[in-house]
Amino acid sequence: MKYVDINCDMGESFGAYTMGNDSEILAYISSANIACGFHAGDPATMRKTVRMALEKGVAIGAHPGLPDLVGFGRRNMDISPEEAYDMVVYQIGALQAFVQAEGGTMQHVKPHGALYNMAAARAPLAQAISEAIYQVNPGLVLFGLSGSELVRAGEKIGLRTAHEVFADRTYQEDGTLTPRRQPDAMITEQEQSMHQVVRMVKEGKVRSRQGVDVSIKADTICIHGDGAHALEFARSIHAAFAEAGIVPRSFTASI
Amino acid sequence: MKYVDINCDMGESFGAYTMGNDSEILAYISSANIACGFHAGDPATMRKTVRMALEKGVAIGAHPGLPDLVGFGRRNMDISPEEAYDMVVYQIGALQAFVQAEGGTMQHVKPHGALYNMAAARAPLAQAISEAIYQVNPGLVLFGLSGSELVRAGEKIGLRTAHEVFADRTYQEDGTLTPRRQPDAMITEQEQSMHQVVRMVKEGKVRSRQGVDVSIKADTICIHGDGAHALEFARSIHAAFAEAGIVPRSFTASI
Amino acid sequence: MKYVDINCDMGESFGAYTMGNDSEILAYISSANIACGFHAGDPATMRKTVRMALEKGVAIGAHPGLPDLVGFGRRNMDISPEEAYDMVVYQIGALQAFVQAEGGTMQHVKPHGALYNMAAARAPLAQAISEAIYQVNPGLVLFGLSGSELVRAGEKIGLRTAHEVFADRTYQEDGTLTPRRQPDAMITEQEQSMHQVVRMVKEGKVRSRQGVDVSIKADTICIHGDGAHALEFARSIHAAFAEAGIVPRSFTASI
Amino acid sequence: MKYVDINCDMGESFGAYTMGNDSEILAYISSANIACGFHAGDPATMRKTVRMALEKGVAIGAHPGLPDLVGFGRRNMDISPEEAYDMVVYQIGALQAFVQAEGGTMQHVKPHGALYNMAAARAPLAQAISEAIYQVNPGLVLFGLSGSELVRAGEKIGLRTAHEVFADRTYQEDGTLTPRRQPDAMITEQEQSMHQVVRMVKEGKVRSRQGVDVSIKADTICIHGDGAHALEFARSIHAAFAEAGIVPRSFTASI
Repeated sequence: MKYVDINCDMGESFGAYTMGNDSEILAYISSANIACGFHAGDPATMRKTVRMALEKGVAIGAHPGLPDLVGFGRRNMDISPEEAYDMVVYQIGALQAFVQAEGGTMQHVKPHGALYNMAAARAPLAQAISEAIYQVNPGLVLFGLSGSELVRAGEKIGLRTAHEVFADRTYQEDGTLTPRRQPDAMITEQEQSMHQVVRMVKEGKVRSRQGVDVSIKADTICIHGDGAHALEFARSIHAAFAEAGIVPRSFTASI
Repeated sequence: MKYVDINCDMGESFGAYTMGNDSEILAYISSANIACGFHAGDPATMRKTVRMALEKGVAIGAHPGLPDLVGFGRRNMDISPEEAYDMVVYQIGALQAFVQAEGGTMQHVKPHGALYNMAAARAPLAQAISEAIYQVNPGLVLFGLSGSELVRAGEKIGLRTAHEVFADRTYQEDGTLTPRRQPDAMITEQEQSMHQVVRMVKEGKVRSRQGVDVSIKADTICIHGDGAHALEFARSIHAAFAEAGIVPRSFTASI
Repeated sequence: MKYVDINCDMGESFGAYTMGNDSEILAYISSANIACGFHAGDPATMRKTVRMALEKGVAIGAHPGLPDLVGFGRRNMDISPEEAYDMVVYQIGALQAFVQAEGGTMQHVKPHGALYNMAAARAPLAQAISEAIYQVNPGLVLFGLSGSELVRAGEKIGLRTAHEVFADRTYQEDGTLTPRRQPDAMITEQEQSMHQVVRMVKEGKVRSRQGVDVSIKADTICIHGDGAHALEFARSIHAAFAEAGIVPRSFTASI
Repeated sequence: MKYVDINCDMGESFGAYTMGNDSEILAYISSANIACGFHAGDPATMRKTVRMALEKGVAIGAHPGLPDLVGFGRRNMDISPEEAYDMVVYQIGALQAFVQAEGGTMQHVKPHGALYNMAAARAPLAQAISEAIYQVNPGLVLFGLSGSELVRAGEKIGLRTAHEVFADRTYQEDGTLTPRRQPDAMITEQEQSMHQVVRMVKEGKVRSRQGVDVSIKADTICIHGDGAHALEFARSIHAAFAEAGIVPRSFTASI
């Protein structure tokens, strides 16, 4: 039997605006990355999402993003490492208070969107984010792109890290994701996508776009919560994992 | 010898904007109410202000406000008790993370501006704010207007509370503050102001505008940090207290 | 033949968040109130909505709101008349620029949510909003609650005004809306709702909750764009109007 | 006699926060770039600043920035040309409404901070910004870095453009500014700074850091309004210009 974590972004509604299908998706994941009010989310949404996750026994993580609500935290910003540190401390704290108020514990931190991508590639940002997490609570797990600067920085500072992989993205022979602007960045065939993710979990390998196998660490699988097919995708992964003898389990329960 | 707390709003700068004279005022106070990013303050300012307060040995409190940066949290908003609960949990958490990251502890929570005023008068808001504080950390002290609904709600829920008084505001015979729109709301004569605050601390009494003495609990004295005469006022209070044998000491150290 | 305007709030999406069914609703209305970025809307949404309205031949209005995105502009705020003036000038200007850029003209201004409600009841706010509109462009039409302080202030200053009525709200014998917190504030029976609105347009009368007829001016009918039944409601009004010989036409085309 | 425009950023206060010394600086400039609420400024500040500029006879321009209040619009953001277009239309419109309300006319648009810098170097952004200005009002003048992509794009689309130069920055032999991260980017000696700016205006030349003269178009001189020495700097430029027979005059008055 093999265990793996499945994580999904949650709590991205804002005020009168609803995003995602959180209550349904929660049935298919083991870790929830909850938005903290910068790129999405608001205090009421945070409270409700924390409560739902605790009820469903899903592990909770903070999902800090750039201060860019209108851009949903997806636009790169030239922030300094110090600014990254400060905004991550702030957002972890905000979510942590809701978790405390509901009597739960926080498992992890996963940066969102452009912050995640920039931290995957830039060591100084990766280090600042890792320090922020460590300083607030060294027991938190850092979720980052498998093999990235971010998990490297987290490990160096002494955090436990979860290497994240994607079922529906193709990989390069150096283990990085094919950039989205390239035509074959996404895997649109569901069967191929399921094959890839099962193999990453069971064998620690992925067939790169260049046709050679690459080693990859797969601690947690990311599924997207706001697409039209989110629920369907979540169910497919569950079915594929069941067939392959892989059991979804939160990262901290798995280790 | 008599001890009393002196508190001041701090960390109200925002981005490129500077407000107040925090580093100098810190020498004259025992408790700092640090803005949490809603009515004022930002993550970088919060980190710096927490650090300064810890260096100076000044007790730290969260100073949550309404989500109204352009109005500096001074305009009443028709928020529900649930919204008040959520925004207070969020802001306490954000500040708490900076305090944790710097290795300190948080002493208290004092709502800001319109949130403070509305909570002083409206029991449901007062209760929601008290619950928010209690749920995040029942060891926190609630700072509220002396004799108000806010301290009443805090006491009822089981929080320690600090009754706050003002040196430069006149009082009514029912113990409430004279509303600011009335001509004699403010005490502009410094000597009279010092006499009032010393008497509140030593005798637990204040001469009301109607000419009769009123009982008042004075656990903490509020001084304003952003006025032109803030520093001068802080020094005067210190001098008046020294002469009267009153020693400034943070609320939790005082009890 | 009788003409009447039908207006609906539009352009309330924000960034990654979608609200309402603008492209479909546009087929059933003659005036669009477009959000201006304070309570909802963003620059991209404003451009797209202006473009759509012009394509469909629907008259365009600015829909300024309180600076309260998370509360969708629905929470009363204690703003001064001067602050109301400034926020209305700002928001009209922002929308006006998109209308100019697309080669159109702006017909009207209708305040949103809590700003609309406060202005209906408070003369100083009503006057400040009317002045804001008049100063930017005295040719703009002010949409306000029929018989309210807002239309009164607009008329006094020299603006053309459109008295707005609601098909699905009950009225009091003094011509005001039954407050929402009362149990019979809403008309849930569609037939009754259609009967009311047709009568308001044709006879200028509405049967009040107290059972007596009240005179009411019905220049424009408000339909809501973000409810589940918005489209169905829009179609019903069209059908009821067709049967009654009432033709929807934008306010400025009607006069 | 030689005329030249002197421009300065204005109206960068926000809510309770004051920035700059607008009322005094206005005596020394011919064009005011007024913040529009994204990187700085708010509706009340915009109204007051427009009013002051009109009273002093200083020409008014919109100063649109990135939606990054906490970063004061100084951090590059990966915005698309379409997003740049939309945010510039919005902000020009907002300011234009205050100018209309006060009975004035708007002279120019100068992008702020990171938006200015990105547009100076990236043709697609420069083009989008130029289109935004042109679409709202083709009579507006575009202020941009002398010789940059921004003024090039503006000229191409048919806008009048003002080439902007800096007294206190050094130039490269290709006519670009020495990047701020280089040690000799700033001219700290006031005499040298005055010599440079007078020569740029009178001879259209600047001595580059590499020691060779470079041709440069100097339609408008930028002075900074928020530094400690802003006022002193403004006075020095005036004195140096008076001595050199250069008369400050707004760009549109100069041509």
